[in-house]
Amino acid sequence: MSEKSILDYETVELDDNDNSVVIIDQTKLPGKTELIKLHTAQEIWDAIYLLKVRGAPAIGVAAAFGIYVLAKEIAGEIGGDGRFDRFYEEFHEQKDYLNSARPTAVNLSWALNRMEQVCLRVGKETSSIPAVLNALHDEAVEMKEEDIRVCRSIGEYGLSLLKPGDGILTHCNAGQLATCKYGTATAPIYLGHEKGYGFHVFADETRPLLQGARLTAYELQSAGIDVTLICDNMSAMVMKNGWVNAVFVGCDRVASNGDAANKIGTSVVATVAKHYGIPFYVCAPTSTIDLHTPTGREINIEQRPAEEVTQMWYKERMAPEGVKVFNPAFDVTDHDLITAIITEHGIARAPYKKSLADLCQKKWN
Amino acid sequence: MSEKSILDYETVELDDNDNSVVIIDQTKLPGKTELIKLHTAQEIWDAIYLLKVRGAPAIGVAAAFGIYVLAKEIAGEIGGDGRFDRFYEEFHEQKDYLNSARPTAVNLSWALNRMEQVCLRVGKETSSIPAVLNALHDEAVEMKEEDIRVCRSIGEYGLSLLKPGDGILTHCNAGQLATCKYGTATAPIYLGHEKGYGFHVFADETRPLLQGARLTAYELQSAGIDVTLICDNMSAMVMKNGWVNAVFVGCDRVASNGDAANKIGTSVVATVAKHYGIPFYVCAPTSTIDLHTPTGREINIEQRPAEEVTQMWYKERMAPEGVKVFNPAFDVTDHDLITAIITEHGIARAPYKKSLADLCQKKWN
Repeated sequence: MSEKSILDYETVELDDNDNSVVIIDQTKLPGKTELIKLHTAQEIWDAIYLLKVRGAPAIGVAAAFGIYVLAKEIAGEIGGDGRFDRFYEEFHEQKDYLNSARPTAVNLSWALNRMEQVCLRVGKETSSIPAVLNALHDEAVEMKEEDIRVCRSIGEYGLSLLKPGDGILTHCNAGQLATCKYGTATAPIYLGHEKGYGFHVFADETRPLLQGARLTAYELQSAGIDVTLICDNMSAMVMKNGWVNAVFVGCDRVASNGDAANKIGTSVVATVAKHYGIPFYVCAPTSTIDLHTPTGREINIEQRPAEEVTQMWYKERMAPEGVKVFNPAFDVTDHDLITAIITEHGIARAPYKKSLADLCQKKWN
Repeated sequence: MSEKSILDYETVELDDNDNSVVIIDQTKLPGKTELIKLHTAQEIWDAIYLLKVRGAPAIGVAAAFGIYVLAKEIAGEIGGDGRFDRFYEEFHEQKDYLNSARPTAVNLSWALNRMEQVCLRVGKETSSIPAVLNALHDEAVEMKEEDIRVCRSIGEYGLSLLKPGDGILTHCNAGQLATCKYGTATAPIYLGHEKGYGFHVFADETRPLLQGARLTAYELQSAGIDVTLICDNMSAMVMKNGWVNAVFVGCDRVASNGDAANKIGTSVVATVAKHYGIPFYVCAPTSTIDLHTPTGREINIEQRPAEEVTQMWYKERMAPEGVKVFNPAFDVTDHDLITAIITEHGIARAPYKKSLADLCQKKWN
């Protein structure tokens, strides 16, 4: 395996013969590249909850493949000629279960709802479970292909905001490992790199789980891109030094007013960037834009276990026993700190209520 | 030892009989409370460089005790009736060596210069090495006592800016473990706690070396103060939630215009606090105010090894091999982000050039 770059692996794959979802276990990176197969609902839920697969777009695709795998399992149990309503009842239960793994990223419910709609439509049309399975398979595969197209398009729009030699800061991992290819926040970086733009990238390590250090620094370095790892609290210094021309981050859910939930610490970077007059861009597939959520206040922020903060790698304590910990996985960046939101259909600017609604109505040509 | 609280230990102590400086090895906290004795110049230098003793005021006192211990060593080698100029030559060499351990905190050179002045004055007056040693001993002991008085006074001034029930955020450790008692940024917290103020404190963990998690959370928890540990990148969220009424931090060097160098990340907290309209206070003994440094730009910022960022506890890699790292130990907070600078002689506000110069001229009543 040592000859392959991390970018040669698929973040999320379907093994239809073995009826499983295959992912890189991202909790083991960068030390170990381990592919794992997820067969059961519990395994898929755990992989999402434990961040073995993470990143809003990758979670969406993993959930789509996952519910397809579980649908095949259900069909196997009740027989291919079983009744659709019984099939659907179990399908819906499994869908709800997977949806409970992480509350903040809208892509999880978006992907599962899309799969459910296909299930219902084809089930009502045909009453044939094999036909439903076929349609679910095609929908999940299409969602993965779409993700790649979406990221590439975000990359092209993002690149239009950059010039050769720019310094770029990013937070957490909205990279290829968070999607099926290119990443969202990293897509302009990869596309610019192909064109010889010579970017200098600063990767925030992103406590507590260090996705920036473990994943972003790793994948950009693997691609031969100039990347410097910093602790989250060094952002002001690199910005003050004039080393950063733009900030690009991903996101987990954008409210209709442009408030954006993303990995905890994103709003700190946005605040500091604003102070230093540096543009702050949120890269958001339209699947992460939730027009039903009016503002950031209505976004449910996942709280995670204290041990993520107090015990590095769950081994050695680095905080006193029994200390109280606040450990939100995400924060909301207010829309007035965001220079623009980059989607696959174009770049939204304030007022976001209108620009986001317009972009969400666009379709691919 | 388990019955004693961490606050019952002296951060820095002189063992005159054993001719050594005794410190708590702060790199082992909170897991293990280990007192270590420093005898040689190398041991003292290492203890400062490796942050076994850290915090500007504690470094100053450790260096004062350290140069006294080394002076006794020199006197032992050349004989108590040796020539003062030979004694002084070696004293000066050792002083320069200790001074090279860390460049940013001005207290290190401040304390060593003060010891050197005593050495020169008494040496010239008496030409007696025993008299010089006596004077050095008394000066170092006085510096420790002074540190306690200074911190207590900062605490009283700081407390005048707070009200019962306030939420307070602090970064790094400017606590008792960074001084001889009370701390600087924590002094208002300890004094308020004695009066039953019921503060709620948020301790930034402070990457890369986690002084906030390991030391601040630990010492405040030991004192029975309500403390919540957060990652550095969560500051915006707790401020936005309305949980923070004031930020108190220590500092390593204040320039004459009020720019303040402190632990990396301090300027991020200051920027976010300003955005949310929360007062940001720097607690600075006048010994950390360097009127000879005009602005923050002239402050030498120590760069530390990449491994502090890439390998937690130097055991398990959490970043890819060979990745580039930027790891400054400090940053400079611009004076326009600072609401006030609290010294033992009073509270300085903008314009700092005048207010700091005035306070530096004040003496104890």
